[in-house]
Amino acid sequence: MNLQQLSLDVWAEIHNKKGIMSMVKLEECREKIREELNNIVDFWLKYSHDTVYGGFFNCIGKNGKVYDELKYVWLQGRQVWMYCRLYRTMERFHRPEVLEAAKAGVTFLRNFARVSSSSGQMKCAFCLTRDGKAVKVQRTIFSECFYIMALDELSRVTGDKDMQREAEEMMAQVIFWVQVDPTGLGRPKLPGDIPTNSMAVPMMLLCLVQQLTEGREQEVVLKYKKLGSWCVQQILKHIQRGGTAILENVSLEGTELPGCQGRLQNPGHALEAGWFLLQYSKEWGDMELQGTAIDKFVELPFQYGWDKEHGGILYFLDVDGHCPTQLEWNMKLWWPHCEALIAFLMAYSQTKRPQLLERFSQVYEYTFSHFSDAQNGEWFGYLSRDGKVVVDFKGGPFKGPFHVPRCLYMCERILDDLLKNTA
Amino acid sequence: MNLQQLSLDVWAEIHNKKGIMSMVKLEECREKIREELNNIVDFWLKYSHDTVYGGFFNCIGKNGKVYDELKYVWLQGRQVWMYCRLYRTMERFHRPEVLEAAKAGVTFLRNFARVSSSSGQMKCAFCLTRDGKAVKVQRTIFSECFYIMALDELSRVTGDKDMQREAEEMMAQVIFWVQVDPTGLGRPKLPGDIPTNSMAVPMMLLCLVQQLTEGREQEVVLKYKKLGSWCVQQILKHIQRGGTAILENVSLEGTELPGCQGRLQNPGHALEAGWFLLQYSKEWGDMELQGTAIDKFVELPFQYGWDKEHGGILYFLDVDGHCPTQLEWNMKLWWPHCEALIAFLMAYSQTKRPQLLERFSQVYEYTFSHFSDAQNGEWFGYLSRDGKVVVDFKGGPFKGPFHVPRCLYMCERILDDLLKNTA
Repeated sequence: MNLQQLSLDVWAEIHNKKGIMSMVKLEECREKIREELNNIVDFWLKYSHDTVYGGFFNCIGKNGKVYDELKYVWLQGRQVWMYCRLYRTMERFHRPEVLEAAKAGVTFLRNFARVSSSSGQMKCAFCLTRDGKAVKVQRTIFSECFYIMALDELSRVTGDKDMQREAEEMMAQVIFWVQVDPTGLGRPKLPGDIPTNSMAVPMMLLCLVQQLTEGREQEVVLKYKKLGSWCVQQILKHIQRGGTAILENVSLEGTELPGCQGRLQNPGHALEAGWFLLQYSKEWGDMELQGTAIDKFVELPFQYGWDKEHGGILYFLDVDGHCPTQLEWNMKLWWPHCEALIAFLMAYSQTKRPQLLERFSQVYEYTFSHFSDAQNGEWFGYLSRDGKVVVDFKGGPFKGPFHVPRCLYMCERILDDLLKNTA
Repeated sequence: MNLQQLSLDVWAEIHNKKGIMSMVKLEECREKIREELNNIVDFWLKYSHDTVYGGFFNCIGKNGKVYDELKYVWLQGRQVWMYCRLYRTMERFHRPEVLEAAKAGVTFLRNFARVSSSSGQMKCAFCLTRDGKAVKVQRTIFSECFYIMALDELSRVTGDKDMQREAEEMMAQVIFWVQVDPTGLGRPKLPGDIPTNSMAVPMMLLCLVQQLTEGREQEVVLKYKKLGSWCVQQILKHIQRGGTAILENVSLEGTELPGCQGRLQNPGHALEAGWFLLQYSKEWGDMELQGTAIDKFVELPFQYGWDKEHGGILYFLDVDGHCPTQLEWNMKLWWPHCEALIAFLMAYSQTKRPQLLERFSQVYEYTFSHFSDAQNGEWFGYLSRDGKVVVDFKGGPFKGPFHVPRCLYMCERILDDLLKNTA
């Protein structure tokens, strides 16, 4: 706590003095981030590749040892995406081994991820055996979404038009499930199961719109323009209680839902949505949206999500102050902290408001002192409320080389811009 | 810790002196248990009845206030079962209000729990709206199992043969899913999803066999005799690693499964299976099974499940000492402690081995000092590793008036027997 407070003081001070001093601190910060990104990519290159059956091991213990051979489609897709993005956009990762690993990941996905569906729809498994047999299929859209991200990003590197086309076909399938008919996902229609606007869905789709359109020809940009705008509208419906809360689940009409589901707050998700909105607002020059994104999706979730007693961002809250029913509600997970770092740094870079940089610093101090494992590399993912490691793996069913390296990658690039512009 | 140690010393001492002294302590214990059972039944009678739509509210906050109106079929069935069992077997609960509440619960279940299924099979929902519309259907057997328990127990009170018949028809459906063809449960057949012997299934079926046959005519007893013996064999297959571990999931052939699933230990489940086996061994006079039950399903899970640092029973462990991937693995849940109390007291009552009573005392001290809420009644369900309340509701999606009152009911009856026989 003292260290953190001290550090905050330093940041505040350097910002007050402005100019060259704060640049020193940001330089230091960029150095740390760059080094951490290198280490993390090395960790996964070293420990996660399955050279026998292809694809990646996902369950990697604290020392890098595989503790389970199951392969999770979300994570396979995310790892391909991350490798390709780094290969494509950062010179020091433009190395054959990175590209080859990504290609091996896509080969594995294309060979095994898709399951035959009685409805003839394009459904992916959630989890596969080491040799690619489907173990579990989720009745959601997310395996398919990360499949799209993997294929689109690799197609940008290789210029493979077939691959790009397959990504867009899968995207059409996902849009059909979300906007037309979800039956093919396999959930039975039940009279009490009212369709819901869950934050995850428009967020994920907005992320995919940005993925599929960034730098592409005008035709592709136009194809997804309406969908992007629809996603933004869906996300904005989560601003509730007269603008004082972001709720994770709302009705399709944008009203509050009854019970725990309706009162649930997931600050990490709101912060992630925040930087998606900031990217969108910058792309389309929408200053009003920028303001809403910062006030409602970055500042607000931080206000209610930050644990005043122990530091760190809580996983779930109930807007009326009940105890969430999720047993892990008060744990500190790595990914909300990653999203917060991106959100605050991006918000600062767009506005230069000192308070946003102070927040970044506050989250940065907590994150690097609690999650990063200096001894064995990579980050722990799951801490108790008071900051002790509860689950010690580096990779598991929902944690892979995605949130951490994406955060470091995004922050490094933003810092590059900031430091370049003020040099 | 001091209190606990002191208390253990007292128990050990009184047991060494034998005879009248230990009876005083057991009397005290029975008094406490009796009083707690009364309070807990009062809590649910007072706060959980939905007099408008029927059935019970399940989501009850720490002070008794309903925080969500969803109704969970497992919990509706369990509450009916508990009310009826108390009404039928304990004079002080033989009150009209208890029976009327149970009847209202069954009416609600019969009106709303069953969902139409395209296969024509008898499937129940997992969760309903307040007015009985299905919200979610699980692809498992458990909603149906608690439906059976509710109907069978009420039919014993009312003598309703139709209701008994419906319970047996549903039982036939569950047996079909488990032993013949699980397709009707709705899980897609996947090449990597190998059929597994999960502890929960034979435990649940053994519990139902005991429920359906206890005190019934010979014809019914014989009808389920083979199934009971099959369940016992399935449970015994979970003894692994040369008898040094109980594993939660094994192959159908009784061999260890790969990965986290195969290494998972759930000491609460093993302890619960332990007292199911003890009941079975007593019923059939199987002394060898009694020995196995105590050594492998009562003593052993306690040995690896008890937290030597903070006390209490851990929720999950990995037999090879990896960190379980379940985020809640190191929490202290109420129900494993309930099962441990029953298991140790029953094992003691059958063998009179002092060590078993000491264990009972050890669990008893932890349980009553950590879970019981003297201020607002009922028990907290979910503590952090170091014994602090993490989730403060009294009723939630998986916690209702079942494990706590069943434990108190079972312990009171065993203590009645012990104290009567040694008076």
